[in-house]
Amino acid sequence: MFYHDGGKLQYPVRVEKPSPIFAKALQQAIGGIQGEVRVCLQYLFQAWGARGPAKYRDMLLETGTEEMAHIEMLATAVALNLEDAPLEQEEAAKDPVVMAAMGGMNIQHAIGTCMAAMPVDSEGVPFNCSHVYASGNVAADMLANATAESTGRMLAVQLWKMTDDPGMKDMLSYMIARDTMHQNQWLAAWEELGGPENHPIPNSFPQENENSDYAYAFQSFGIGDDFETPRGEWTQGKSFDGKGSNSVVRMRPLGDKPQLGAASPKSAAQKGQMEK
Amino acid sequence: MFYHDGGKLQYPVRVEKPSPIFAKALQQAIGGIQGEVRVCLQYLFQAWGARGPAKYRDMLLETGTEEMAHIEMLATAVALNLEDAPLEQEEAAKDPVVMAAMGGMNIQHAIGTCMAAMPVDSEGVPFNCSHVYASGNVAADMLANATAESTGRMLAVQLWKMTDDPGMKDMLSYMIARDTMHQNQWLAAWEELGGPENHPIPNSFPQENENSDYAYAFQSFGIGDDFETPRGEWTQGKSFDGKGSNSVVRMRPLGDKPQLGAASPKSAAQKGQMEK
Amino acid sequence: MFYHDGGKLQYPVRVEKPSPIFAKALQQAIGGIQGEVRVCLQYLFQAWGARGPAKYRDMLLETGTEEMAHIEMLATAVALNLEDAPLEQEEAAKDPVVMAAMGGMNIQHAIGTCMAAMPVDSEGVPFNCSHVYASGNVAADMLANATAESTGRMLAVQLWKMTDDPGMKDMLSYMIARDTMHQNQWLAAWEELGGPENHPIPNSFPQENENSDYAYAFQSFGIGDDFETPRGEWTQGKSFDGKGSNSVVRMRPLGDKPQLGAASPKSAAQKGQMEK
Amino acid sequence: MFYHDGGKLQYPVRVEKPSPIFAKALQQAIGGIQGEVRVCLQYLFQAWGARGPAKYRDMLLETGTEEMAHIEMLATAVALNLEDAPLEQEEAAKDPVVMAAMGGMNIQHAIGTCMAAMPVDSEGVPFNCSHVYASGNVAADMLANATAESTGRMLAVQLWKMTDDPGMKDMLSYMIARDTMHQNQWLAAWEELGGPENHPIPNSFPQENENSDYAYAFQSFGIGDDFETPRGEWTQGKSFDGKGSNSVVRMRPLGDKPQLGAASPKSAAQKGQMEK
Amino acid sequence: MFYHDGGKLQYPVRVEKPSPIFAKALQQAIGGIQGEVRVCLQYLFQAWGARGPAKYRDMLLETGTEEMAHIEMLATAVALNLEDAPLEQEEAAKDPVVMAAMGGMNIQHAIGTCMAAMPVDSEGVPFNCSHVYASGNVAADMLANATAESTGRMLAVQLWKMTDDPGMKDMLSYMIARDTMHQNQWLAAWEELGGPENHPIPNSFPQENENSDYAYAFQSFGIGDDFETPRGEWTQGKSFDGKGSNSVVRMRPLGDKPQLGAASPKSAAQKGQMEK
Amino acid sequence: MFYHDGGKLQYPVRVEKPSPIFAKALQQAIGGIQGEVRVCLQYLFQAWGARGPAKYRDMLLETGTEEMAHIEMLATAVALNLEDAPLEQEEAAKDPVVMAAMGGMNIQHAIGTCMAAMPVDSEGVPFNCSHVYASGNVAADMLANATAESTGRMLAVQLWKMTDDPGMKDMLSYMIARDTMHQNQWLAAWEELGGPENHPIPNSFPQENENSDYAYAFQSFGIGDDFETPRGEWTQGKSFDGKGSNSVVRMRPLGDKPQLGAASPKSAAQKGQMEK
Repeated sequence: MFYHDGGKLQYPVRVEKPSPIFAKALQQAIGGIQGEVRVCLQYLFQAWGARGPAKYRDMLLETGTEEMAHIEMLATAVALNLEDAPLEQEEAAKDPVVMAAMGGMNIQHAIGTCMAAMPVDSEGVPFNCSHVYASGNVAADMLANATAESTGRMLAVQLWKMTDDPGMKDMLSYMIARDTMHQNQWLAAWEELGGPENHPIPNSFPQENENSDYAYAFQSFGIGDDFETPRGEWTQGKSFDGKGSNSVVRMRPLGDKPQLGAASPKSAAQKGQMEK
Repeated sequence: MFYHDGGKLQYPVRVEKPSPIFAKALQQAIGGIQGEVRVCLQYLFQAWGARGPAKYRDMLLETGTEEMAHIEMLATAVALNLEDAPLEQEEAAKDPVVMAAMGGMNIQHAIGTCMAAMPVDSEGVPFNCSHVYASGNVAADMLANATAESTGRMLAVQLWKMTDDPGMKDMLSYMIARDTMHQNQWLAAWEELGGPENHPIPNSFPQENENSDYAYAFQSFGIGDDFETPRGEWTQGKSFDGKGSNSVVRMRPLGDKPQLGAASPKSAAQKGQMEK
Repeated sequence: MFYHDGGKLQYPVRVEKPSPIFAKALQQAIGGIQGEVRVCLQYLFQAWGARGPAKYRDMLLETGTEEMAHIEMLATAVALNLEDAPLEQEEAAKDPVVMAAMGGMNIQHAIGTCMAAMPVDSEGVPFNCSHVYASGNVAADMLANATAESTGRMLAVQLWKMTDDPGMKDMLSYMIARDTMHQNQWLAAWEELGGPENHPIPNSFPQENENSDYAYAFQSFGIGDDFETPRGEWTQGKSFDGKGSNSVVRMRPLGDKPQLGAASPKSAAQKGQMEK
Repeated sequence: MFYHDGGKLQYPVRVEKPSPIFAKALQQAIGGIQGEVRVCLQYLFQAWGARGPAKYRDMLLETGTEEMAHIEMLATAVALNLEDAPLEQEEAAKDPVVMAAMGGMNIQHAIGTCMAAMPVDSEGVPFNCSHVYASGNVAADMLANATAESTGRMLAVQLWKMTDDPGMKDMLSYMIARDTMHQNQWLAAWEELGGPENHPIPNSFPQENENSDYAYAFQSFGIGDDFETPRGEWTQGKSFDGKGSNSVVRMRPLGDKPQLGAASPKSAAQKGQMEK
Repeated sequence: MFYHDGGKLQYPVRVEKPSPIFAKALQQAIGGIQGEVRVCLQYLFQAWGARGPAKYRDMLLETGTEEMAHIEMLATAVALNLEDAPLEQEEAAKDPVVMAAMGGMNIQHAIGTCMAAMPVDSEGVPFNCSHVYASGNVAADMLANATAESTGRMLAVQLWKMTDDPGMKDMLSYMIARDTMHQNQWLAAWEELGGPENHPIPNSFPQENENSDYAYAFQSFGIGDDFETPRGEWTQGKSFDGKGSNSVVRMRPLGDKPQLGAASPKSAAQKGQMEK
Repeated sequence: MFYHDGGKLQYPVRVEKPSPIFAKALQQAIGGIQGEVRVCLQYLFQAWGARGPAKYRDMLLETGTEEMAHIEMLATAVALNLEDAPLEQEEAAKDPVVMAAMGGMNIQHAIGTCMAAMPVDSEGVPFNCSHVYASGNVAADMLANATAESTGRMLAVQLWKMTDDPGMKDMLSYMIARDTMHQNQWLAAWEELGGPENHPIPNSFPQENENSDYAYAFQSFGIGDDFETPRGEWTQGKSFDGKGSNSVVRMRPLGDKPQLGAASPKSAAQKGQMEK
């Protein structure tokens, strides 16, 4: 169960120079694929479905709850950035910079929400919950979360660069710091769970059931006399998981052309397709 | 530029006991969020946008090309599993197991595609390209790819368990092996690029610009006398990135309640909202 | 069955000063969640599925048919606003206001439709028919419709404010009036069906089957010494439906932590999750 | 900011007879358009954007926080219903009822999440945040919320009828009661804000700007000798908002056929379209 | 503007043996990509944006209006097929065929709509209006429409085969006939507009602006000693549009590897990517 | 199986004057409904599901492989157009044309991808794979492909007009030529398969099963004294498929009002709906 404290913010949110274009950009941090709605729901759904040791469930619940407060901060920042948004076209056309702001804002902020945030990205695309990655495998989930926080921090960094509003820069420097923590947190958990030995995920599937001839071979599909297979830690030495040795294979097909049956008379194909 | 060899398969695909329900389940490996359309496009878009050292671009191109062949194999497997799919309802109702197959299949396989695969998931939801994660940051992308291959291998493992068709089991044991390789490959590249020192991503943003008081603190939002903050490698000792020391903070809000202005007369709010 | 009269408009549509940015904004009234495609399909699907007294079905059919004509008017308005839309970038860059128009328009109007409307919203997101709310419960549907017309009128009002084109203002003042009517209409029907006594919806479910201890209690989840539960008609006196008395409860959990089983060996979890 | 209490449930969740088909149906209450993810985000986004009197913001925050706990309960219910879900096809085919369960379940519960809930509806369609209705107009939002709770209670009622598991029936009888409360709560707030006098929404737009000839007229588009305009409180007497008198109009078009210009040479139309 | 005749059906709709699985399959003909919502909106949006000779606009309006009546017929058919749909799980489990029906139906028909149709496809995916193809080029639109009617007739044919209900077979034999007409109609219009001479679409773009070396060459990307380029009317003789001569080219790249700049310091790439 | 040649481009891609607005417009050619991701996947899925004569499968494989190279070219063009994209708002506001560029670009290019392409359209909407039309009927598929190439060429033509960059104009003149070829190619195949005699599709369904009274009648739904049914090759003479004679019918309904049963007590309708 959850509680609130009447809407107090995790960290102060101030806007000195409202900007509807920045409001639009901030939406990416709310409803973008790197945004806070995503990580909030992702950590919570992972928590609610977590099986096995309870501490990972609890940790997910903790940080999922934090991310709710981040959505709250960002929604507040969007609303504050919209306070003086232009609405009348004729008026805007008098000043090209205002006109550009009108052209560049999410017009729904003016005509659809009375100057408030929405769970959409910077281009107005609503967040789609298929991005809530919750696989039920705790090691895979830690990697998914570290990925989300990496792109989340990239986004916050770019927003920090985009604005010169001191209040926004301050809020973002806080959020960037939280992303630093969370990247570390999920990877620390991944390491605690076994690090490279977590792999291949899922580690509960006996590797003798996979076709071991192909489990540690980098397959190269390049053609042309001047193409060279790219080399790195993945083409030589021990594999990352410590369970195999890397090799390189120049690919040739192992299978033939597929032999589908002629189209069935039960189907809606053309007559000519019903024989081969 | 790309080439094909007339549709020869990377690995043989055989189906002895066609099953329309298994065809439906296989769709998840084509058009699901863990599926091959996703990784194919993800690796290729990462390649096409890759800036910096060329070898990562080349590697992405290699494996993106491989994943095309995996879609091909799976699309073939779906078509072969549909060869005798039931269509007439009256006929199906004579045998409850056939009826269950009819109820459990993706009916579009019969009424929409003449028994062929589609780029949709196991529930019939079309793949949405927002899942093509290509951040332009090579370290973040390696993590995203390792995540995709982890959940991809989980999926292939579950499909392997679901079927007893020897052809399908053989094909899947090959695909599981490839997922093993690819998990290792992306994490080896992540390691080669610096491993923990990649973090916090992006490493090109000077950390002095983030609010350093909060960059290595696990924040706990739990309340209640019996709640204990979950402890682990993320609450003590060195941080995963080696750049800070973990601590734990019991959270209290740093900000006040937000003060939005009254609704603007320019907006479509109710009259009563236009004063505070 | 339906008829048309050769495309005559329900009300005149004139545009004196074409504006591609206004064309983009108008799209929200076609394909936005408050738009006419939505209400048209919503009322018609409600009509087609209506069970019970025929007059509500007929009324839904009437107004659903009207909304078709509204889409037609708006599509015409979009096409007329696009007549002189800029296309060449070099040309546009000569005048910052034209450049802002080019930056601010839906570029698909120029490169995808030969200057015509699409069933998308102001940000270019296609209308998704999940917004066609048709619950089969006539009282719930009347509320859904009143909601749609309320936000629809808000939108039309904001568009009216945005433009200074006399033709557009005239058309919108007509549409605003229709939204006034429709708000009244759906709520009058809701009232005729019983008003507050419609509730709780569905009224066909015996309330003795619900857990009556919690059916009229406002539950407060706020914490902190300075938090006060918000008071209003929902915290005291008779309930809106006249069937209970409002009270306030400070929440504490009634359930324990959930006890999910350990991960199943049939699943793709990590080994460590398979014991508790 | 938000808090949790370690995952204790708002109300106990017990499952005696796990059913993967019921797990699938329960998903509608999580990720369906009538579901808890929707109302949770809807109330919170309304709160975060609320301008005007603070008490509505606080109330929205309260109930938004409650809905988080409802998602938690339902996610737990889904996980518990999946405990013994069938996976092997060959095994399932031995018992037609098990086979029907396999055909009827969301197969992703078995192959994608290790037996856990997802933010998708009963057919596996991910929740799309465009359904988070937050118009910024407090009266419109109250109606939207009453609508959501009406269809939400309908759904919970149908799930209650579908199952005979005593634990599930108990949980649902609690949730149905909460929906009763919430329907009442939002309508009580609507009434407190002015009830019928809230309308037409937005009440801040001077009605003299709308085309008053058409603001209280029911327009009838029916043809045929035997068609009679449906009569009710919306065709006679005072309008619901008390501001007009209802009338009925048999419709004839007020506008002519639209006159779009010939296709522009700047467009990609066919040559023949470029003259009229 | 549009009119209705009180809901009379274009053609009678009878269901003798209600089947919830067939109701689910019929949804594809309403909200599937080949369905009636799509063609209705497609023809109407094409009409509303049609520039040039009025008769194509009128024809589009005619058939768009017809398709509305088809949605109405199908929505009625869905509702009638749901009349006795199973709801209680325990009850259903007594008869495996009923259980299969419950597993195979769209459960939202029972728990979400009170047994009525929705604008979704057979798998429950809502119709997305991006499928409303309206290019503004009348020749391209005629082809798009002929395509839609071809797949629409395929679908209706498969539904006809699936059912043995005489009422449904009768309704579908009517709809199949209409699809026959419409295929012919759009292609006749395409022919009237010029047939092959319509091409290349758009015919208003001077072909001297295209790179004429590549405008009539079939490019072959196959490799391997045993691959032979597929031959047909497209590899030899006059081109279909009569404006060129077909040839075959074995492809080699004309461009080099792309040279993207190093990652910008303005971007969120890793440090190592900022040099080449 | 597929191969690459290390990323060499099918045709050279040069950008002299980078333009972030043009980058945004180019996205339509990648991830729009007329774009290359669509045709690539469409042709390949058609190939993988093709039953009947092998040469069509091979041809689809050929051109599907070509389209991959087109995505590559366009992704490169987007990246090159973004090289100097504005990021800092304060800086941009100094020059209205730069400000308009910032307002008009897809801001995710700067804050989400480090200046690289995404599989989204010009408005930022991700490509949805429901647009991969693969019906399994080879004649229907040829028409679908000709449609796609027609709108694809329209798009490329508009992009050619929009830019004055010589590199971009050169690349687009190549792509326009390829679209010319592909339009011809698919229609030549359609002709080779029988041309008009392909119709009505599917030709494998005996026409005696359709209701032949309505298979060649243009139905007119227009009303009003001044409405005239639009005449053309579809209202008189032989039908396009040569199998019937066109006629015109002024429509009157053949069916009555539908008679749905009263709402079921099993449903969640209101009490009043449960009788008629």
